[in-house]
Amino acid sequence: MPITDVSGVYASGAHCGIKSSGALDLAFIYVPNCVGSAMVLSQNNVVSYTLRHNGALHGPVQLIIINSGNANCLTGDLGRKHVEQTVEVASRHFQCKPDHIAVASTGIIGVPLPIDRLLEGIGKLNPLDQQSDNCAGAILTTDLTKKSAKRVLTIDNQAITIAAITKGSGMIAPNMATTLGFIVTDVYMNGDQCKRALTAAIDDSYNMLSVDTDTSTNDMVTLQSSGKVTIEWTSSAMALFTEALTDVCQDLAKQIAKDGEGAKHFIQVDVSGADSLKDAKAVAKQVVDSPLVKTAVAGEDPNWGRIAVALGKNPAVSVDVSNVCISINQMTIFSNGRPVDMDRQAVKSAMSKESVQIDVRIGHGDYSATAWGCDLTHGYIDINTAYN
Amino acid sequence: MPITDVSGVYASGAHCGIKSSGALDLAFIYVPNCVGSAMVLSQNNVVSYTLRHNGALHGPVQLIIINSGNANCLTGDLGRKHVEQTVEVASRHFQCKPDHIAVASTGIIGVPLPIDRLLEGIGKLNPLDQQSDNCAGAILTTDLTKKSAKRVLTIDNQAITIAAITKGSGMIAPNMATTLGFIVTDVYMNGDQCKRALTAAIDDSYNMLSVDTDTSTNDMVTLQSSGKVTIEWTSSAMALFTEALTDVCQDLAKQIAKDGEGAKHFIQVDVSGADSLKDAKAVAKQVVDSPLVKTAVAGEDPNWGRIAVALGKNPAVSVDVSNVCISINQMTIFSNGRPVDMDRQAVKSAMSKESVQIDVRIGHGDYSATAWGCDLTHGYIDINTAYN
Repeated sequence: MPITDVSGVYASGAHCGIKSSGALDLAFIYVPNCVGSAMVLSQNNVVSYTLRHNGALHGPVQLIIINSGNANCLTGDLGRKHVEQTVEVASRHFQCKPDHIAVASTGIIGVPLPIDRLLEGIGKLNPLDQQSDNCAGAILTTDLTKKSAKRVLTIDNQAITIAAITKGSGMIAPNMATTLGFIVTDVYMNGDQCKRALTAAIDDSYNMLSVDTDTSTNDMVTLQSSGKVTIEWTSSAMALFTEALTDVCQDLAKQIAKDGEGAKHFIQVDVSGADSLKDAKAVAKQVVDSPLVKTAVAGEDPNWGRIAVALGKNPAVSVDVSNVCISINQMTIFSNGRPVDMDRQAVKSAMSKESVQIDVRIGHGDYSATAWGCDLTHGYIDINTAYN
Repeated sequence: MPITDVSGVYASGAHCGIKSSGALDLAFIYVPNCVGSAMVLSQNNVVSYTLRHNGALHGPVQLIIINSGNANCLTGDLGRKHVEQTVEVASRHFQCKPDHIAVASTGIIGVPLPIDRLLEGIGKLNPLDQQSDNCAGAILTTDLTKKSAKRVLTIDNQAITIAAITKGSGMIAPNMATTLGFIVTDVYMNGDQCKRALTAAIDDSYNMLSVDTDTSTNDMVTLQSSGKVTIEWTSSAMALFTEALTDVCQDLAKQIAKDGEGAKHFIQVDVSGADSLKDAKAVAKQVVDSPLVKTAVAGEDPNWGRIAVALGKNPAVSVDVSNVCISINQMTIFSNGRPVDMDRQAVKSAMSKESVQIDVRIGHGDYSATAWGCDLTHGYIDINTAYN
């Protein structure tokens, strides 16, 4: 599902020599006539200078230069200099003003970028390339799979395309990974419209995703509009677009969870019956983040006790125990505050599937939410203890 | 360090048949002339009926009946009935009013208590026994070691003793464990004084302890005064007592962290330079809770990157990256926002010790805090995936 299917979008990837393996490590996304863009950046207080640079940009982002293998983070003032040099060289090569160039880096932190190789690599890129697959490959770190999504929708009798790529495996591992997402669309949107739609979509997708509760120094998700398709932006048009964008982001978030470090099971937690959306989201995240729930799923054990306890973790969220119902892959294991007489082997067998869906009702409220994650296995321990 | 060293305190443990292994599973702590007491109970919304019972008690707690092997939790109305029966039988046997009897249970949840065995066991206890070691053993579940602490201090020219036992290994595992702590003292204190001292001590000890971020349905810590030693309660006397009580609780908390499920390393995180005590505590907990820090310690790797990123996790806490300094076991690995040229093998070797102390300065503020935890290993995964 190439992002270059979106008219007016150019993208590719190359190997410039940051990764010693010879794998792709440099990518660009170029929307020369970008009419509007928006970004959501990591909330971590400790961030790469790339995010400071991007946060200070005005005007639409026409060009994004991405490297993997090095996060350009926590290397003191060198980080700033390397971003400035990257933007300067890319500006000349792509004939694009520095104000319109964003940068993204992902990989080891604390090690200076091999800036000469990066700059030389940028000089060899073809700005009119449309090798989306190379682009999707060049942004990866510990990921085992490339991740992309695409939706076509019709608004105002016009076909609109949204396409995206993403990466991420550990939610963050400073020596390895971060989460990046790049989304493009052909519908004409200004920066404000991009911001509104992107923020809403992220809230219900990337922000409901957890591999290991750790957040990153380099996280970012962008939305760029090539402006090729003009529609009338009624409020219903905005709602339709935001819905499709959310769908794309959820698709990407699930792909990241499935590729979580060491993951053997993808976990989806659906919470209903909450008194507010905030409560529903908090409880869904509590369950998907609980190490004891994650290890129970790894052990394919229908341990309703651990799920019930994870529900109650936050004293500020009202949970009516006598109304709590829990099911796993549509099989009820706990009902109205009590365990049910389940067919244990049947539930265990249902949990042997790659996807485990945990449904939880916590009361009689009208709000629901979904969170995604993965199980906690020996593989996660191996990846994160024996990486050097 | 027997709790029965405190004058006026009786305690023992027995096997009543809840644990099929034949291990001790029933204990009591009896302070017949208790003049004041206080309890801190789990904040989880999903709790055992034992905590509801205890929370509703008035008057000083003279008797605590504790069982291990079963948490008496999430068994519907049976839980309430079993607590009532326990209190009724204990009241007759110990000649103690029901209003003065607390109960504590720890072990598997969702399975009804074998109440007949428990009641029969209570009937065989000798209220004037002083077998503190049996008591400390009978409250354990997955713990590998018994845990106790004692301090003697002098206030107003009088010797005052504080003694305690505790249990805990996973912060919580609904099928196995919970954290319980029982503290006794001979100094005359009323309920309000007990509450004030205990709350302050818990804030800086049990509440700064994390094995796996999961909280429990059955957690509780109690303080009982036998009233044998009378002093004048000036504000400096209260401060001295609270300091000693905090010391006892920190001792117990550290013992729990060291015995964390699968733990190979005990971790202490000392944060300084924060703008407030709240910030210092939040950051210390963020670091000790980070799966990536915990796995780095398991791998004995001085990964300052993971520690730096864990510092920044909470956008509400101000961290001045350019001032951040990090050391491990007194060896500096990151200074003023940049990695230092460390002797990697020397630091790795220092991390091979059982205790790993991480010191972090996050800015120029006046506040500091300490948190305790343990590393995340294959052992944790084994215990929590393969338990049935």
